[in-house]
Amino acid sequence: MNTENRPCGVYSPVVTPFKKNLQPDHERYVRHCRWLIGQDVGLAVFGTNSEANSMSVDEKKVLLDTLLEAGIPTTRLMPGTGCAALTDSVELTRHAVARGCHNVLMLPPFYYKGVSDEGLFRSFSEIIQRVGAAELRVYVYHIPPVSQVPISLALIERLLKAYPDVIAGVKDSSGNWSNTQAMLERFQPQGFDVFAGSETFLLATLRGGGVGCITATGNVNPGPIVQLYRNWRAADADERQRALDATRAVFAKFSMIPALKAAIGIYAKDPEWGTVRPPLVDLTPAECAALAASLHDVGFTMPGIER
Amino acid sequence: MNTENRPCGVYSPVVTPFKKNLQPDHERYVRHCRWLIGQDVGLAVFGTNSEANSMSVDEKKVLLDTLLEAGIPTTRLMPGTGCAALTDSVELTRHAVARGCHNVLMLPPFYYKGVSDEGLFRSFSEIIQRVGAAELRVYVYHIPPVSQVPISLALIERLLKAYPDVIAGVKDSSGNWSNTQAMLERFQPQGFDVFAGSETFLLATLRGGGVGCITATGNVNPGPIVQLYRNWRAADADERQRALDATRAVFAKFSMIPALKAAIGIYAKDPEWGTVRPPLVDLTPAECAALAASLHDVGFTMPGIER
Repeated sequence: MNTENRPCGVYSPVVTPFKKNLQPDHERYVRHCRWLIGQDVGLAVFGTNSEANSMSVDEKKVLLDTLLEAGIPTTRLMPGTGCAALTDSVELTRHAVARGCHNVLMLPPFYYKGVSDEGLFRSFSEIIQRVGAAELRVYVYHIPPVSQVPISLALIERLLKAYPDVIAGVKDSSGNWSNTQAMLERFQPQGFDVFAGSETFLLATLRGGGVGCITATGNVNPGPIVQLYRNWRAADADERQRALDATRAVFAKFSMIPALKAAIGIYAKDPEWGTVRPPLVDLTPAECAALAASLHDVGFTMPGIER
Repeated sequence: MNTENRPCGVYSPVVTPFKKNLQPDHERYVRHCRWLIGQDVGLAVFGTNSEANSMSVDEKKVLLDTLLEAGIPTTRLMPGTGCAALTDSVELTRHAVARGCHNVLMLPPFYYKGVSDEGLFRSFSEIIQRVGAAELRVYVYHIPPVSQVPISLALIERLLKAYPDVIAGVKDSSGNWSNTQAMLERFQPQGFDVFAGSETFLLATLRGGGVGCITATGNVNPGPIVQLYRNWRAADADERQRALDATRAVFAKFSMIPALKAAIGIYAKDPEWGTVRPPLVDLTPAECAALAASLHDVGFTMPGIER
């Protein structure tokens, strides 16, 4: 497989700003995406942390078009296109590819539980065949703590055998290092690119031959995460990893998605950024104050966002 | 609350027939729905067993319109309208109500896990307010084994307080009788109608003051289930319940949704009925043969379907 121009480095599941009426806020969205690109962070729009599954297919199509019209390069985008419904996944993937976004991150269908690898294989297979685009590159999205539908090593092996030119890699958000390690050992040598599901395993993933991470905190702490990616062979890499872990721990004390959005609101002096769609709940003013204090304590900054 | 014309009795989450190309098959669908209505079974279309979450909102809107154009009465319909995305749930609920289907069965948003009652309250609340129809009656759908997002008693209490004229009842598919019992004791006296999530607890639910059941096997075994509903005070009610349990046990030996569709295919001599959408997998010919043999052994029939 051609390895030129393949995604690598640090990507962020871009948080989606909503207006008070819960409609996607296109202006804040474009601004945030431009800031991330400027920090050398790729845009895994429509990820779990994007509240993607709280939005309709049409809302996501419009958001993607908005970014492209704003001049965001397709090569820096990796939209999430896996939905619960087969037909939704096909529609969104087709739209992304038609707009030149060839790399997509694909959740398995996530409503039915205890489904077989055979059923999941048929699902990915149907989507790939219905989209029918030679340019399509699918990164499978393994996030059993949320989806409750795991993507097994056996399923990856089968998909790679059936679609060697399409199945391009994985985001492993299992939180289980031994699973990431197994993917790195078995599949990375075949050109199947392993992204850690957060920066927690970024250094370990790079040392194991992986290509980077796709991480929620990339939304707020992009600079230091990218610095570790660029300097992972340096003597201070473990120290950098520990610093990333300390910052992440602050966010992990709260509900992650509302906390990420609240932090942007705090540093941009734009509290409406904290708005989330149900079933998520935005941080209370007291939680926002506690988050601000904790971030201040660890010397957290958001250069270019701060006002 | 006005209790006239409120749904009660036996409903079935209508299985959705697909053509070989996985498109919904409108002709088989109408025929199956008419057969169910003829057996006095209400149509909880777009339930879990309908593979509803494997279909797009548009596909469901077209299916509902197809039934109404075929003359299926709105009073016998209880469409499932809860989706993962807030905007999808609003669109589908609004469509159902606009078409005169005022009773809807509503899943909570099911992608994000570990969400708070506050977040779920806001979700139901947003949908109810955005739909903004005085006629809307919401039956909340508690199915934690699949959705992984439970609807707690505290949440029901809060919803009933905020929307006493809208929140109308529950389908309890927890499989946990003590939960059904608690709902019957706490909420049924307020006119909050409790449906058992399967016929397994039909007799117990009726004895506890509940109004019926919404059950997968209503698709294939409607007559005997309706007979128990009509005669639950009769001396032979326990015996009838045991017979229902025996039939259900045959289907439960297989994957339920493919087995229901396969059974219709077997008795209608129309094997294409067995088609399911991924991530589900249709029964193999060997499994179909085993199902047919087991059904024959328990004397199972489908009067009016058999050819």
